Amino acid sequence: MIDQNLIARFQPYRPTNSLFLSFEGIEGSGKTTQIQRLKASLEELGLNVTLMREPGGTPFGEKMREAILTSEEKISPVAEACLMAASRAQLLEQRIIPLLEEKDNIVIVDRYIDSSLAYQGSARGLGAQSVLEIHNRHPLTIVPSLTFYLKIDLETSMKRQDHRGSKKDYFEKENSQFYTKLIEGYDHACSIFTERFQVIDGKKTQDEVSSDILSAAQKLIKG
Amino acid sequence: MIDQNLIARFQPYRPTNSLFLSFEGIEGSGKTTQIQRLKASLEELGLNVTLMREPGGTPFGEKMREAILTSEEKISPVAEACLMAASRAQLLEQRIIPLLEEKDNIVIVDRYIDSSLAYQGSARGLGAQSVLEIHNRHPLTIVPSLTFYLKIDLETSMKRQDHRGSKKDYFEKENSQFYTKLIEGYDHACSIFTERFQVIDGKKTQDEVSSDILSAAQKLIKG
Repeated sequence: MIDQNLIARFQPYRPTNSLFLSFEGIEGSGKTTQIQRLKASLEELGLNVTLMREPGGTPFGEKMREAILTSEEKISPVAEACLMAASRAQLLEQRIIPLLEEKDNIVIVDRYIDSSLAYQGSARGLGAQSVLEIHNRHPLTIVPSLTFYLKIDLETSMKRQDHRGSKKDYFEKENSQFYTKLIEGYDHACSIFTERFQVIDGKKTQDEVSSDILSAAQKLIKG
Repeated sequence: MIDQNLIARFQPYRPTNSLFLSFEGIEGSGKTTQIQRLKASLEELGLNVTLMREPGGTPFGEKMREAILTSEEKISPVAEACLMAASRAQLLEQRIIPLLEEKDNIVIVDRYIDSSLAYQGSARGLGAQSVLEIHNRHPLTIVPSLTFYLKIDLETSMKRQDHRGSKKDYFEKENSQFYTKLIEGYDHACSIFTERFQVIDGKKTQDEVSSDILSAAQKLIKG
């Protein structure tokens, strides 16, 4: 069981007239496509949208990204979790917080704290409590207003990954057991943070998924 | 005040027939020279000595070292602390723990957790509690049997740094206020971890310092 006082530290961030959104999902969930589509739709409505990715998004963060994704050595799960937190803290202080504190900005991040819960917390076995403890200080307690979790099953992920030709990174090299634990980790994150989690059926057609995401985002913008 | 239960998690590591030592000190304290001298003296006694440095010491850790020391952007203090912890976790799991669990090894690290307490905890203002919380999970709770703190004052540090010609790294670029806080941070770390801290007067001659260090190390080896 995770300490409830610890969970309560991670309240969805809702600055006036700005919006902080994250996308989560395993490989093949369609995150990248859907993020681009949401950005285009929101810009058509006249809104300012900035996309970022994790790990990365700052010169420092991109070095963190390179260090983990191209690693030839096995990385300690705690090192992995701390590296992700390092990249995230820098992204928050250098880009996310300044943008959100200006008026009228929508920040969308491709992966955020729930990736740490799924990848390091569940798949690497560190546990959600430990991942949250590492984050338990400003600015790492800042979490999005809404998190779109594009949920697909293991079979769909594996099928979609087979159709990709590019060289596999540090995480893409993992086996189906790892991906099963990732899905469990996301389900767990969703059960901890029910308020900000928006589970989207990633097996629907691209257009249906886009429409589900856009209507949830618009509801939040109006609210 | 720091939570006493948290402090108690960091017990000096004393594996059978092996020894884990760290060296701490601000720029100009003579760490590098003294580490080399201690290694030579212990090897003359027939002991196996392995030197490591932080951040660094593994391919992953050296990437972390490069990312921080050559940074042209201002790094978030939390990002800095998490990066140091990431490098440390990898060094522990890949090199320190395997060596210490073998028999008859002496591991000496140039900087360890007390650098995080001094640099990020004190000089960057994160606080010792926060730094220890980030470390509050295996393997990061492992701390040395003995920590040599080569203590010098600000004036001595500045004088000795002036005599160095090389390009300054991310931390060496800092001003005297930063160094004052570093010294305060080390004093605080020393007051938290009195048992494993061995304060050495770094203003003595090199030979005197070497002799002080060697006799403390030998006492520990015999004990």
